[in-house]
Amino acid sequence: MDYDAYFRSALDGLRADGSYRYFAELERRAGNFPRAFHHGIGREVTVWCSNDYLGMGQHPAVLEAMHKGLDEGGAGAGGTRNISGTNHYHVALEAELASLHGKEAALLFNSGYLSNWATLGTIAARLHNCVVLSDAANHASMIEGIRHSRAEKQIFRHNDVEDLEARLKALPRDVPKIIAFESVYSMDGDIAPIEQFCDLADQYGAMTYLDEVHAVGLYGHQGGGIAEQRGIAHRLDVIEGTLGKGFGVVGGYISGSAALCDFVRSFASGFIFSTALPPMIAAGALASVRHLRSSQAERDGHARAVASLRARLDAARIPHLANPSHIVPVIVGDAERCRMLSDRLLERFGHYIQPINYPTVPRGTERLRITPGPLHTDADIEDLAQALATLWQEHDLALAA
Amino acid sequence: MDYDAYFRSALDGLRADGSYRYFAELERRAGNFPRAFHHGIGREVTVWCSNDYLGMGQHPAVLEAMHKGLDEGGAGAGGTRNISGTNHYHVALEAELASLHGKEAALLFNSGYLSNWATLGTIAARLHNCVVLSDAANHASMIEGIRHSRAEKQIFRHNDVEDLEARLKALPRDVPKIIAFESVYSMDGDIAPIEQFCDLADQYGAMTYLDEVHAVGLYGHQGGGIAEQRGIAHRLDVIEGTLGKGFGVVGGYISGSAALCDFVRSFASGFIFSTALPPMIAAGALASVRHLRSSQAERDGHARAVASLRARLDAARIPHLANPSHIVPVIVGDAERCRMLSDRLLERFGHYIQPINYPTVPRGTERLRITPGPLHTDADIEDLAQALATLWQEHDLALAA
Repeated sequence: MDYDAYFRSALDGLRADGSYRYFAELERRAGNFPRAFHHGIGREVTVWCSNDYLGMGQHPAVLEAMHKGLDEGGAGAGGTRNISGTNHYHVALEAELASLHGKEAALLFNSGYLSNWATLGTIAARLHNCVVLSDAANHASMIEGIRHSRAEKQIFRHNDVEDLEARLKALPRDVPKIIAFESVYSMDGDIAPIEQFCDLADQYGAMTYLDEVHAVGLYGHQGGGIAEQRGIAHRLDVIEGTLGKGFGVVGGYISGSAALCDFVRSFASGFIFSTALPPMIAAGALASVRHLRSSQAERDGHARAVASLRARLDAARIPHLANPSHIVPVIVGDAERCRMLSDRLLERFGHYIQPINYPTVPRGTERLRITPGPLHTDADIEDLAQALATLWQEHDLALAA
Repeated sequence: MDYDAYFRSALDGLRADGSYRYFAELERRAGNFPRAFHHGIGREVTVWCSNDYLGMGQHPAVLEAMHKGLDEGGAGAGGTRNISGTNHYHVALEAELASLHGKEAALLFNSGYLSNWATLGTIAARLHNCVVLSDAANHASMIEGIRHSRAEKQIFRHNDVEDLEARLKALPRDVPKIIAFESVYSMDGDIAPIEQFCDLADQYGAMTYLDEVHAVGLYGHQGGGIAEQRGIAHRLDVIEGTLGKGFGVVGGYISGSAALCDFVRSFASGFIFSTALPPMIAAGALASVRHLRSSQAERDGHARAVASLRARLDAARIPHLANPSHIVPVIVGDAERCRMLSDRLLERFGHYIQPINYPTVPRGTERLRITPGPLHTDADIEDLAQALATLWQEHDLALAA
């Protein structure tokens, strides 16, 4: 068998339907975010699609902590957490994250993907006869974790309390159940009815697993996410988060009871057999979390930028999805057109917004997903809205009513 | 259901059979490796169980590149590789790794675990009717990747050419096949018959997937691993490696044909949906790989330390597994005794060697796994051998013949 021919033909299929991905080679410039040098077009651009939502990736407190961590402890951890790889920065960061979410414990992973995959994959596999009730819009990492567990999965309609309740009601009381969902959904920017899901969990004896990766750092007075903002963090069994988006570094984590975190620590293959995050990464993340627990400036600036972009898009009648979060999706609905608009924005106007195509979003909902932040100026926002308005007119695209 | 009670009871089971893991909280001190401050006992110890085999985690070229990368580009990547997260350091590192292994391309992952899991999980799932022939001693990340793919798996006896051939012979010629194995096995330190496996792959039309995580940086004139050392890198379809052991930083990768890497890049959920490694991590890994492609000093010093420790253990009649690699396993064969010896070594002698228990190794083969390196001095090695000899005598343990 000619394996390479098979791989090439699968890639040709992606090219044919417009969903082949071209990566933009960037150099973000610390101190100059949201600007980056774009190697493909050889000039500086403004980045509008980063998940470093608050610009913490260039925050002096974070960089200083990482320089110090590097000087103190070197480049890497040197082992798995069990075999010489646990550094005091890991321990301190886990304690800080537990405290952030009001939980007994937390556990670090190399990425948010791994934290979802390993935690759901482990708990659902080992809780005998467990049924996972999974929101239809859940992230790939949760889906793959549940799939990996081989537990029974029921997909409930996105954010649908009634559908979830009907499914819970139909299950025997004594069957272990996990309700797995997100707070802010990253592509539409809508937010789950967390309270009602917790009510159902209480009523039907289910565990709650909440992915807050697009909310930690951004919402709540201390950056603890939507659950903190709503005062209900204590009602969730697991709050999962990332250190790579609002906190600006890299890595994932769960927080929960001491027993739950110790269970995952002890049984999750993806945790046990991974080289630990570099201590200097943990040091940087720790500085970022601590900063955002006390400073409101980044969250305030973030909210202002989001409101400002929405107002300017409305004024220009550029259609965008309404939602209660910071994510501004401009739906294009066609992979080729989405890429064309992205290319024009970049080449003519110097605005970089990656086109979002299948499988990240369903076919037919291809979009420009804009994530304005506190480092975008009013002039940046005005400039982007005008560029979009120009393209909308030139290409005769539908305007908002 | 009381979920926490279930978690606690599972943990009690681990404690009862001696396989509960206690993490040592360390501070490795850059410039002073292999020394680290051990928070549990409040003093400096010598680390003998790190997988930062060559001490590259404190190498000035690596630290300098990371400081520079941090100043230039900040803390994190700010997105997945597709959505604003590709930095020029990722691109440069992938090119360097491809060149190291003599391949057309390479692809980075957040960890070695993820690179095995995502690559095998994707290729084996998407090659229609694929059969994976997996060495019985393969790492958890490969096992979980194959499991995730739901492809048919056949486990062949560890390093057994005849068993593998019998299985290949029994499969239809036109069925896609992947032979998945490692070069250096991390717990016993033995090495696969790579040439013979490649011969079988040619004869029976199989792909070869080689995990070199315990070999890259360490073997071959440029640190390309056992396949480079034996001049057969071109015969492997995939060489998988890590940036977190010999190279001293963190992260994993595959190298292979352009089509294969592009296929995994385009279809592997664990790649697509992960925030990219921080550019400064890629910068550090790049410096490490480049250094070890030209410098032999670290590999020479490593080989000397291994030979010296083995000679001193032999002189003291401490039994250790013979193998052709750098891993020196002292088999204890009992979880409790293994932990006791580790505790005594630490508390009385200041030598830190984590006990290796199930599930990392099979029950009954619990061990002290020693990984001496170029930064251990002759005095360190002599001191460790004497400490082991003392404990062996005091506890009346069996001596080598």
